[in-house]
Amino acid sequence: MSNDNQGTGLELRSLVRSSGELELSLARVPIPEPAAGEILVRVEASPINPSDLGLLLGPADLSSGVVSGTDESPIFTAKVPEAFMRMAAARADESMPVGNEGAGVVIAAGAGAEQLVGKTVAMLGGAMYAQYRCLKAADVLVLPDDATAADGASCFVNPLTALGMVETMRREGHTALVHTAAASNLGQMLNKICIAEGVGLVNIVRSAEQAKILTDIGATYVVDSTSPSFLEDLVKALVATGATLAFDAIGGGKLPGQILNAMETAANLTATSYSRYGSTTYKQVYIYGGLDTRPTELSRAFGMSWGLGGWLLTPFLIKIGPEAAQKLRQRVIDELKTTFASHYSHEISLAEALKPEVIAGYNRRATGEKYLINPSKGL
Amino acid sequence: MSNDNQGTGLELRSLVRSSGELELSLARVPIPEPAAGEILVRVEASPINPSDLGLLLGPADLSSGVVSGTDESPIFTAKVPEAFMRMAAARADESMPVGNEGAGVVIAAGAGAEQLVGKTVAMLGGAMYAQYRCLKAADVLVLPDDATAADGASCFVNPLTALGMVETMRREGHTALVHTAAASNLGQMLNKICIAEGVGLVNIVRSAEQAKILTDIGATYVVDSTSPSFLEDLVKALVATGATLAFDAIGGGKLPGQILNAMETAANLTATSYSRYGSTTYKQVYIYGGLDTRPTELSRAFGMSWGLGGWLLTPFLIKIGPEAAQKLRQRVIDELKTTFASHYSHEISLAEALKPEVIAGYNRRATGEKYLINPSKGL
Repeated sequence: MSNDNQGTGLELRSLVRSSGELELSLARVPIPEPAAGEILVRVEASPINPSDLGLLLGPADLSSGVVSGTDESPIFTAKVPEAFMRMAAARADESMPVGNEGAGVVIAAGAGAEQLVGKTVAMLGGAMYAQYRCLKAADVLVLPDDATAADGASCFVNPLTALGMVETMRREGHTALVHTAAASNLGQMLNKICIAEGVGLVNIVRSAEQAKILTDIGATYVVDSTSPSFLEDLVKALVATGATLAFDAIGGGKLPGQILNAMETAANLTATSYSRYGSTTYKQVYIYGGLDTRPTELSRAFGMSWGLGGWLLTPFLIKIGPEAAQKLRQRVIDELKTTFASHYSHEISLAEALKPEVIAGYNRRATGEKYLINPSKGL
Repeated sequence: MSNDNQGTGLELRSLVRSSGELELSLARVPIPEPAAGEILVRVEASPINPSDLGLLLGPADLSSGVVSGTDESPIFTAKVPEAFMRMAAARADESMPVGNEGAGVVIAAGAGAEQLVGKTVAMLGGAMYAQYRCLKAADVLVLPDDATAADGASCFVNPLTALGMVETMRREGHTALVHTAAASNLGQMLNKICIAEGVGLVNIVRSAEQAKILTDIGATYVVDSTSPSFLEDLVKALVATGATLAFDAIGGGKLPGQILNAMETAANLTATSYSRYGSTTYKQVYIYGGLDTRPTELSRAFGMSWGLGGWLLTPFLIKIGPEAAQKLRQRVIDELKTTFASHYSHEISLAEALKPEVIAGYNRRATGEKYLINPSKGL
């Protein structure tokens, strides 16, 4: 921090103007004073998750993006197509901080939280793409002494989502799972969990390279949606596992309907009598991401016993209650460097996060590419 | 019944051959002898509901239909397109009786059910497109003395579905409803129920004529999906009623997604702060029919707090349990000639139900046109 900026820190802001423009900038904001029970964290690592991109980039047309301002304080602007402004209406003209989760070092504490000063902690709660974050001590996880901020930066979203899928499966009476975009960081965690717990998992990937990532870590059922035998392979894996619940990160296109239809075919293969309304086996697909923003297209040949819906981590954690949620969190800490290890391909500064070529990179959401923002980098 | 057929009766059968043909015929089957606790009913009225058409006609291409056989014993055949045979595979080469519900006069009874002889009863349970139906006495509803078989023929499917929608609304924590294809017999019943109980109901129709049917019986919120202001009208009605649950009889096309998007818009209009994942208000659409068999297309601008699923009467009744189900049934009997009165535009015989021009008529599922099969007609 240069001297003339003492007492302030940078915070990444996303603003959608009602005139139809996205603006990303770095705001200089006062460093908060932690109140009783609060801590002040110097953020050192915060991942760019797919779940951050919606708020960060909105529905902007990135190909129209231009940069103005200075190297130290760049401003990225891009057009938001008219058709999408309706979606963005609720956030229009409000400068919003971004970043779901992160980790850093506690540099100050209010009364009752002094013992945390100097510790490296993991945080969830938004506004993590910032140099400093003040929050309640009760809301952070203290990382083990041998863990860096980068180790703990992705402590919440992916690990708890993967654990939440298995927990949802049990609570809703299913016995095995289907997962799409399955070679992702999250998908690899899910494989490790399911292998450890003996839960059948059907992994749907989109290339042979992605399939190899999963078979290399011990996945049994990997089907490639680009293969001509995809639907048959999927039915076979569903019959073998008995999976009737899927989590889909993609959302758009035909995949959710194809999964429901394959589940119906699998159920009918083992049915003993014909039911006029299709199989009575309940089939559920939860869409938890939106890698494909095109419409979802369902060819309904899967009877009447089915559900499709949205799934989101925070409401899930609220639903299961604080005690059950805490158990999941503790498991993440216990297995931070094994089951829940995250890998980053790029570490960038706050200013770099506003460069068009870098934005294009993290917005590609490519398998094997994962971006980590380090707000203390380059200062 | 002519003398040489004594002891037998006609039963309509639907057969999909694995060679790719639908065949409708009238099978002559022995009249069953009611066992203890059973009754034998001479069926005099059985409606053709949309929910019967799937089993009756399967996925056949009706334009290819031809009739063979005799006037008394016609056989209707039509091609089933290759692409749809997968859907029909589970019923292939099995001759299936049809007809979910009906009513008639008890003409014989087993031990313990003798008191029912001579009574007119309403029945649910399939195989109602037949001259005789033998079933458990406990499974029928005895109609009031002044009710005809035609009055009671549609006692179960539409009335219990309409009541089931309101019951589902209460059990799942919603306070108002949306209904599509809302001018149907079922839709009119639903309006009467909601008016009587003060439940907000948004009726979606597809023409000004249909709108008039509903406003004539006192409906407050009627929106026409063919109007240029449809989406705005829908949002207004959703804001006024607070409806977050819809029952859709159509299934295909964009309507289910439009309803979810309109619910999201309505929720955001009353929201106090922006949520990055969309509104936290839970929005649900149940598809309970398939008037449009095209794919369902969801343009997902409705956040993550939503569900789409199938809804079917029988699993619903099982879920709420026998006591709650009996309450609903009793209400139907109590209000048979008022709330739950059905209107038929055509009364046809079993043989007429196999004529191509008649099939084209009832398969049109046009508002205001409702077909009743009277198996004792024309004998």
